[in-house]
Amino acid sequence: MSYPEALRAQVERYLEGLRFSSEPATAGLEEAMRYSLLAGGKRIRPVLALATARALGRDPREVLPLAAALELIHTYSLIHDDLPAMDDDALRRGRPTCHVVYGEEVAILAGDGLYAEAFRHVLAEQPGEPAHLLAAVCELAAATGVNGMVGGQYIDVRDLVEQGETTLRRLHELKTGRLIAASVECVLLLGGGTTLLDFRAFAAELGVLFQIVDDILDVTGTDDALGKPQGSDERHGRSTYVSRYGLDGAREMAAESHRNARAALARAAPGGAAELEQIADFIYTRPS
Amino acid sequence: MSYPEALRAQVERYLEGLRFSSEPATAGLEEAMRYSLLAGGKRIRPVLALATARALGRDPREVLPLAAALELIHTYSLIHDDLPAMDDDALRRGRPTCHVVYGEEVAILAGDGLYAEAFRHVLAEQPGEPAHLLAAVCELAAATGVNGMVGGQYIDVRDLVEQGETTLRRLHELKTGRLIAASVECVLLLGGGTTLLDFRAFAAELGVLFQIVDDILDVTGTDDALGKPQGSDERHGRSTYVSRYGLDGAREMAAESHRNARAALARAAPGGAAELEQIADFIYTRPS
Repeated sequence: MSYPEALRAQVERYLEGLRFSSEPATAGLEEAMRYSLLAGGKRIRPVLALATARALGRDPREVLPLAAALELIHTYSLIHDDLPAMDDDALRRGRPTCHVVYGEEVAILAGDGLYAEAFRHVLAEQPGEPAHLLAAVCELAAATGVNGMVGGQYIDVRDLVEQGETTLRRLHELKTGRLIAASVECVLLLGGGTTLLDFRAFAAELGVLFQIVDDILDVTGTDDALGKPQGSDERHGRSTYVSRYGLDGAREMAAESHRNARAALARAAPGGAAELEQIADFIYTRPS
Repeated sequence: MSYPEALRAQVERYLEGLRFSSEPATAGLEEAMRYSLLAGGKRIRPVLALATARALGRDPREVLPLAAALELIHTYSLIHDDLPAMDDDALRRGRPTCHVVYGEEVAILAGDGLYAEAFRHVLAEQPGEPAHLLAAVCELAAATGVNGMVGGQYIDVRDLVEQGETTLRRLHELKTGRLIAASVECVLLLGGGTTLLDFRAFAAELGVLFQIVDDILDVTGTDDALGKPQGSDERHGRSTYVSRYGLDGAREMAAESHRNARAALARAAPGGAAELEQIADFIYTRPS
């Protein structure tokens, strides 16, 4: 299974080079932020952003500040999701979670700090037309607010799908789908693109695909590959695509979603967009 | 003691009109956000923004979206500061704190949501030159990140002043000073102003004054007026201007800071800036 490793390496180097403060007194906060930020992973969101730039005929390096902001925000969401008051998870990517290592109060602030620095970084460093950059950063805020990531996490921790208040699909659109879609969308907005509907359809479908596969892996994966205890969704009593549709049903849905994503991409980039295709295939077939 | 009540009323009405989502499933999250946002208070930060606009000869209503963002961010910081893992405060402005009413997990997300919606709102609603708006929102992010509010809160919860890692003045510059200064600064940036040094000096001094008076009130105020138990700094074992310089020493420092602020303002606006003067006087003489 191929993955745009060159883009991932670019992202990784860029993230490693980020410093948030030269203030000695906040060095411990920065350490906690970097501990979670530099824990590895496929960097799907920033790699998606770079691959989208390439598919639009641009140099992927141009969007590195935006790509980094996406990963900072993703990392912040993981730190807060893992907190004792939320999912109370002690392991993430095979390592103790931020609050286990640095304490709960530091983990809350590390998350808050990563979110703030994501906005500061993209606003200060991302080149582009000011009006286009405003639109992209506004989408980033919207995708991570009440109508996005934070709203989805609220629905999740309050078990509102189980209580029939909303649908599983809507939960995941908000909780994970919008930020994955924003990884494509913000690059379109940076370029001033407003009518790239097929790219948008691809991005939205990718968010759905990601979550269905995530639910399947929580059942079929090993602790080692997942970097956290397998079966945690079931223990949390969560509705998942597997609990709702069975393992075979979920696999069929994943296959359909993957076909839809590839079809949308073929319409968006008739000349081919090799890296975006690789990312879609990776999300579908990844082992963890 | 006079205060720009007309500006406060404008802010209050504007905040009451804010809605973050039409999604039924996240109504409970929005309720928690509004519970903390609409708890009253002097709205010093947004009123400062409006008064700065007037001092620059503009219509204060023009900057209402930015002003609202400042109050959303301030409210988010109060919710997270009050959490059990942080200051563990059960009362704020005379009412039970967000986590006491809605639970810790909802309070964390209400804070996260307010911060996201602050950025979304100002980016989507604030009129102005795109390049100027970018600069203003970048300052907002910087003032609330590792080199601002979040960094200051980290220094505070880790008792790093007591441990000699930094100074009391630096703690407060970061924790509260930068956001108060940003309430003036962002309005200058929105207007494209880059050389208004006396306004900047006024804004920075106001942040210092605010904190010295806050420390004095924690000792001399009544529970009723403060809306929280008096003496909480001492119970938390915190360095304050009073613990460091004594009550008389702190009062002298407040008087000097107030004189400095008024002097900077007189240089910034030789023709007078009645509302900004009122705010400086209010911060100096307020009862709570």
